[in-house]
Amino acid sequence: MNDMTTATLEQTLSIDSDRMWSALMELARIGATPKGGNCRLALTRLDGQGRDLVSGWMREAGLTVTVDEVGNIFGVRPGRNMALPPVATGSHIDTQPTGGKFDGCYGVMAGLEVMRTLQQQNIETEAPLALVIWTNEEGTRFVPVMMGSGVHCGVFPLETALSAVDVDGLSVRDELKAIGYDRGAPIGTVRLGSYFEAHIEQGPILEAEDTVIGVVTGSLGLRWWDVTVTGMEAHAGPTPMEMRRDALYAATYLMQAIVDIANAPEFAPHGRGTVGTVNVFPNSRNVIPGKVGFTVDLRHQDAALLDRMEARFRKTAADLATRFGVQFDVKDVQEFPPTPFAVAMVDAVRDEAARRGYSHRDIVTGAGHDAVYMARIAPTSMIFVPCRDGISHNEIEDAEPRHLEAGANVLLGAMLTHAGVVA
Amino acid sequence: MNDMTTATLEQTLSIDSDRMWSALMELARIGATPKGGNCRLALTRLDGQGRDLVSGWMREAGLTVTVDEVGNIFGVRPGRNMALPPVATGSHIDTQPTGGKFDGCYGVMAGLEVMRTLQQQNIETEAPLALVIWTNEEGTRFVPVMMGSGVHCGVFPLETALSAVDVDGLSVRDELKAIGYDRGAPIGTVRLGSYFEAHIEQGPILEAEDTVIGVVTGSLGLRWWDVTVTGMEAHAGPTPMEMRRDALYAATYLMQAIVDIANAPEFAPHGRGTVGTVNVFPNSRNVIPGKVGFTVDLRHQDAALLDRMEARFRKTAADLATRFGVQFDVKDVQEFPPTPFAVAMVDAVRDEAARRGYSHRDIVTGAGHDAVYMARIAPTSMIFVPCRDGISHNEIEDAEPRHLEAGANVLLGAMLTHAGVVA
Repeated sequence: MNDMTTATLEQTLSIDSDRMWSALMELARIGATPKGGNCRLALTRLDGQGRDLVSGWMREAGLTVTVDEVGNIFGVRPGRNMALPPVATGSHIDTQPTGGKFDGCYGVMAGLEVMRTLQQQNIETEAPLALVIWTNEEGTRFVPVMMGSGVHCGVFPLETALSAVDVDGLSVRDELKAIGYDRGAPIGTVRLGSYFEAHIEQGPILEAEDTVIGVVTGSLGLRWWDVTVTGMEAHAGPTPMEMRRDALYAATYLMQAIVDIANAPEFAPHGRGTVGTVNVFPNSRNVIPGKVGFTVDLRHQDAALLDRMEARFRKTAADLATRFGVQFDVKDVQEFPPTPFAVAMVDAVRDEAARRGYSHRDIVTGAGHDAVYMARIAPTSMIFVPCRDGISHNEIEDAEPRHLEAGANVLLGAMLTHAGVVA
Repeated sequence: MNDMTTATLEQTLSIDSDRMWSALMELARIGATPKGGNCRLALTRLDGQGRDLVSGWMREAGLTVTVDEVGNIFGVRPGRNMALPPVATGSHIDTQPTGGKFDGCYGVMAGLEVMRTLQQQNIETEAPLALVIWTNEEGTRFVPVMMGSGVHCGVFPLETALSAVDVDGLSVRDELKAIGYDRGAPIGTVRLGSYFEAHIEQGPILEAEDTVIGVVTGSLGLRWWDVTVTGMEAHAGPTPMEMRRDALYAATYLMQAIVDIANAPEFAPHGRGTVGTVNVFPNSRNVIPGKVGFTVDLRHQDAALLDRMEARFRKTAADLATRFGVQFDVKDVQEFPPTPFAVAMVDAVRDEAARRGYSHRDIVTGAGHDAVYMARIAPTSMIFVPCRDGISHNEIEDAEPRHLEAGANVLLGAMLTHAGVVA
């Protein structure tokens, strides 16, 4: 018995939770890891097996499958009015090296389950529907990340993607061929009218608040820098404290500032500040560090506030350089602008969650998703469901069937609302 | 013309600076590195060549050479009264992988130059003199460091040294044999009555104060720990600031405390606090660090004050664990007690420096030296001379001939004072 089933739900078309779970588990057998996770890196033989399996299911569900030049797989379900662009959903099925069974795969299986449900119920929509599997979302084997959606949305050229190589020097072009996903249709052959993506939250908020559906209103803007602090390397024993220029000591103040800036009330609740990596030179127990490199990751959903966070970070670095007599070099690495999702798409998700009686809250995504690129070219939103302890990119990544079911039902309802059901 | 030459010096026996410099440069050709440094790791073929060269010079200077079971080389110059134990000097000729030409080698070459000067001048001493080359002071290839002096002084057993292996699994026992320095005399065959060691400062004090001779009054006590901070690994984007347990953020406060403790006025001028290494897990740009390991190095010349520094460090770690909801594990790694040198030996160095008109100051050694172990079994002191920019353990390590000359002259005078010159 599902505790979220309500009176309204009984009058509503719903997906088959067991069938969706079975599909997820069958896909997860390809590249299964000993700890219960998945290793199915983009464009490997295993990814090829996963693609073959799922595109087979797509065909069985009545979809017309098109592969494009970067290996994106589009399955289109005809609508009554084929002049309308498809209402789409999708995600990715490549994984991290020690990834889980749900990241990406859930979005594709939820979309597949929507298609299967409509097929089983013989429901025709006004606009066509589409299910997309984007190539290489994770970016573990080939950069840039979110490669397939990036090419589709014109963020970077096809050639950038095709000529990317992995650590062994194998290119995307070669590896698409090796798994039989080369010779695809030109980019843009399948044009999408709008896009919903279901995904596990990959964060702790929904679980902590015991909320089933995250109505994703947009994505945080992100700015990345590499900071290098240069002081003077010296022996820990013979060098008196007052004669030191300890690069690490100075660096710790900036590391703290990154977190403190994001914690400032004016940037709550969407500010994020993280120092994820630290590399000390020479990293020897009895040598005062002469050089320290670390990364800075600042995020906010508001570009103007993100500007202020950045300004505060840069001013702090300058002040610390003066205070400690060390040098701070700040190098730009990457940037994603904040991306608000289309109001009508967000409303569709929120309304459907409410109609079905699922607890829900607005949420922003702090992680990158194919939907963030799709939002640049079509009305887009996302549906989040909780994942255990907020953990993702990890073999122990887990999610509850009842939550996955709820997310897929919201996806079903939102897509039908947008596409229109033929009476 | 040497600007430190004074009227008094002209009446005084002095070493031959050019001859000493030539010997240093000739030794430095064995294992010379492109950047002007030395790579002559302990008990390698190159170390064997260095040993052969210098022990040949010792014999030519009239010394009777004895090698002991751990490969220490003792060259004894007879005195009139052979019942007296030798007044000794020495150091090491093994180097760091990217070491300089002076660390260790200077002490041995200064001692050799003393012996050559006495031979040339036909001077007989009351007590015998000795010059020692200690095995594996650097500890780069084999641990423990200061291996030869450690065994000689009973700090650890001979077997500990002989069974130590390098990264390739080669043992000290095997490598002594490979270079022909096995089958030595039993440890303690040559007993030393007192010990002086000349060395570059490996720190910035003498150069900064434009002082020629450092009168070393003892060595700092040292305590080493490994600290591990455990928080919760999570995605940098989706995890709100208030739900984080950022191991790095908490760790930075303890890293700062280590430096701040040593900087406290009550521990000046001999307190030292260093965090030399940091290792972050998973060390990924967009992951909040779940675990951070770093090293702590605290030093002071007063054991009671070092106790107080340690107590403050431990209390800070406990307070931070509570404040940030992370775990701090502190593991003991190593400890050296503060070692004051014998007053008479220190006075001999100071008096000789004054007599020759060299600028001088009392100083403590923050680095480990064979002399620190020798101080446990015989009256000991050290003579420091400046090195450029305080840099050592580096190929660009450098020292001025006039400073090296001054140190060797002080060594000569102090040894003669202690041994007594036969009229």
